[in-house]
Amino acid sequence: MQLKFDFNNMMDGTLKEQGISEKELDAVKGIAKDAYAYFEKNRGTGWMGWSELPYNQAEIVGDIICTAAEVRANFKNFVVLGIGGSALGPMAVFNALCHLRYNELDPSKRGVRFYVEDNVDPERMYALLDVIDVKETMFNVITKSGATSETMSQYLIITDILKKKCGKDWAKHIIATTSESKGNLIKLAKKEGFKTYFIPDGVGGRFSELCPVGLLPAAVLGIDIVGLLRGAANMDKAANSSDIYKNAPLMAAALQYIAMEKKGKNISIMMPYADSLKLMADWYCQLWGESLGKAKDLDGNIAHKGQTPVKALGVTDQHSQVQLYTEGPYDKVITIIGVENFRKDMLIADGAEEFADVNFLCGHTMGELINTERRATEYALTRSGHMNRTIMLDSVNAESIGELLMFFMLETAYCGKMLNIDTFNQPGVEEGKNATYAMFDRKGYEAKKAELEAAPQKNERYII
Amino acid sequence: MQLKFDFNNMMDGTLKEQGISEKELDAVKGIAKDAYAYFEKNRGTGWMGWSELPYNQAEIVGDIICTAAEVRANFKNFVVLGIGGSALGPMAVFNALCHLRYNELDPSKRGVRFYVEDNVDPERMYALLDVIDVKETMFNVITKSGATSETMSQYLIITDILKKKCGKDWAKHIIATTSESKGNLIKLAKKEGFKTYFIPDGVGGRFSELCPVGLLPAAVLGIDIVGLLRGAANMDKAANSSDIYKNAPLMAAALQYIAMEKKGKNISIMMPYADSLKLMADWYCQLWGESLGKAKDLDGNIAHKGQTPVKALGVTDQHSQVQLYTEGPYDKVITIIGVENFRKDMLIADGAEEFADVNFLCGHTMGELINTERRATEYALTRSGHMNRTIMLDSVNAESIGELLMFFMLETAYCGKMLNIDTFNQPGVEEGKNATYAMFDRKGYEAKKAELEAAPQKNERYII
Repeated sequence: MQLKFDFNNMMDGTLKEQGISEKELDAVKGIAKDAYAYFEKNRGTGWMGWSELPYNQAEIVGDIICTAAEVRANFKNFVVLGIGGSALGPMAVFNALCHLRYNELDPSKRGVRFYVEDNVDPERMYALLDVIDVKETMFNVITKSGATSETMSQYLIITDILKKKCGKDWAKHIIATTSESKGNLIKLAKKEGFKTYFIPDGVGGRFSELCPVGLLPAAVLGIDIVGLLRGAANMDKAANSSDIYKNAPLMAAALQYIAMEKKGKNISIMMPYADSLKLMADWYCQLWGESLGKAKDLDGNIAHKGQTPVKALGVTDQHSQVQLYTEGPYDKVITIIGVENFRKDMLIADGAEEFADVNFLCGHTMGELINTERRATEYALTRSGHMNRTIMLDSVNAESIGELLMFFMLETAYCGKMLNIDTFNQPGVEEGKNATYAMFDRKGYEAKKAELEAAPQKNERYII
Repeated sequence: MQLKFDFNNMMDGTLKEQGISEKELDAVKGIAKDAYAYFEKNRGTGWMGWSELPYNQAEIVGDIICTAAEVRANFKNFVVLGIGGSALGPMAVFNALCHLRYNELDPSKRGVRFYVEDNVDPERMYALLDVIDVKETMFNVITKSGATSETMSQYLIITDILKKKCGKDWAKHIIATTSESKGNLIKLAKKEGFKTYFIPDGVGGRFSELCPVGLLPAAVLGIDIVGLLRGAANMDKAANSSDIYKNAPLMAAALQYIAMEKKGKNISIMMPYADSLKLMADWYCQLWGESLGKAKDLDGNIAHKGQTPVKALGVTDQHSQVQLYTEGPYDKVITIIGVENFRKDMLIADGAEEFADVNFLCGHTMGELINTERRATEYALTRSGHMNRTIMLDSVNAESIGELLMFFMLETAYCGKMLNIDTFNQPGVEEGKNATYAMFDRKGYEAKKAELEAAPQKNERYII
């Protein structure tokens, strides 16, 4: 295991009266144990198909690696068309494991250029088309249902262009990642002859990074997807105890449960101290927000649960958010992700001998500086009584990223169970979808349309 | 004015029992009036120098435009070395007003490539140096004090490389933006002969985008900085009333004040529905978080004020955060920024006749889709009783961006005054800085070092 979870600064030993006592932890041992038992009993079933992904994909991994090699040999660009769970995982892993200015590198120093298009802003679609030639581009359309409006809009636009520019070979520019058994995209794939990969039934969007949704883009980028899965398996196996002191993600979940339910912490800050982990915070924000943000509990009671996840970046956001974190309300848990060893380091040169407030940096490295500032921020947060915890990675590599992904998925699954909510659904997004359908006069949504028209009119005094 | 502020969905007319009543608004009219009077009385003085930036820079703007033309003629890359307020504004304006894949465009279709380096991650510094040649690069070092550890580390590293690669001409690769009267960087600039621009005394980092901090990078990118300042002036002049119903930023501040102080909303979501405004949310997060997050009020009482700002992007984050926003706790205000007219639009082509759940999109444009989803999300949030408000821009251009920047700065200044806190300081960041100095054994920080060493030891049981 390359990942260590340090929760000292959640506890009253360092945080004093703002911290959690061992007695308070003892009080949740029972429900943590139940959450663990529930997970173990149901793993691989229902919506928990994701828990088996590190173990059951040997064949598919081989196929993906072959396809990835073909893509690299025959195309100059690889574009993911997807949104939410079909975009955030691929971006996070790309960010973590490829060069930080990858697309701008000289072609001799990289593979195919990589883009993830996860919005329907027309200016952005134009911008993409200004920098790629579709004739040299493979598009990976990712949507389980094939009914995601944003992704299917992009699909229609891109296939229209491909047909015009590539003629009869256009379908060779598309790989569809979708449900094997149902939905529009599998039907289109069969009709048009797209290469396809399947999203298993029990794998929801935000838990899909370790299935072909994430594995294909990663493999195309030359990332060691076997290592990624091995790391995930390592974390899963390490989390093999119902004792919170021996199961890091279970302890993490128990601490957040106490923070939310007993200490009024409705905000979860995710603050990696590494540019390579910046987008891991985005991926976490969907996982945590969409899984736990629920109006009803499993017994049907009104609950309105959910901690709001916030992405931050160290040290950058010390100059933006840490003033608030150290002096503001006691309403948040700050999770810091540190990296012990950067893949490269750089010496801070001399040149400021006359300035004591700068010269002390000279002779140290940037790696020392970022990690010292991380520890200093942990100290400042703790001193001001603000809950913080640190996940340390030895270094950023395929295995440690696999561990990190699995850590957060397990923490989320355990915590959802402890909160007694359905971790795996997202009923709250239907209202907005239905309103969109009605506004577009889709057949079958006449009642919703009438409802929209009957809504209170806007008061012109409230528009300035 | 191209900006409109619509707060219907903050009010009980649409939000019902979760909304604010006119009576509640009436109750804060007095302190809003006081905040306005305070601002008008003190504008341009103390830390409110920023309020005059739209009016007092005619000469400097001319100089900046000349310098920008020279940079474009003689360099291929322009790199800002800065952090916090020296980085977030330049990035937000670049994002808003340049091509969304600017650096990747063919050189014939753009000016100099643009980078903002706002972290001390060594991997990121290597990544930058892999894609630029310092001999073809102008570096804009931005720090008022010249003592910002991160920026000065970068400065030392870059000047060391420049000296080796460019010889005696190395100083021609640096423009310093700093205090005219004090600090290290002005001394270095005079010694080495750097071109300099000045940050006025009364302009703090997070309020500095409209001074040379932001104007020089924008001008180098060919952005109409006169239009930017004109837009800011237009907003400032439009906010010329102590009546909340006639002053949009004052009403915005009053609503947030009520939301925070009377309704328990400790979270402020900033959610533009346009990729070009994504980084405007980052800039806002510093402005709002660092200005209002304060431990003490102006009378010295313990207060722990501050709403946590959260950045989101529409429609993208509908597939990540809107589940939480519609079903989760009633603890947030969601500010949506909409764009009426995109600079380009794109038709969604036919090709899904057999799928009713996709075909309804065909024949519409992406611009229609993003704006329809925005309105649908507003509807869904309102229906679930979650406070939301919308800032509409006619289109994204230099003037409307100037209006938007000034809107948020005014809202922040008014709201800080209403909360009775010091909007313009940041005492909470000192603790972390001092701890960093101590960890690096800086002279004069021996007492802090001793304090760190006396802190409670970590409990090994709390590391898994």
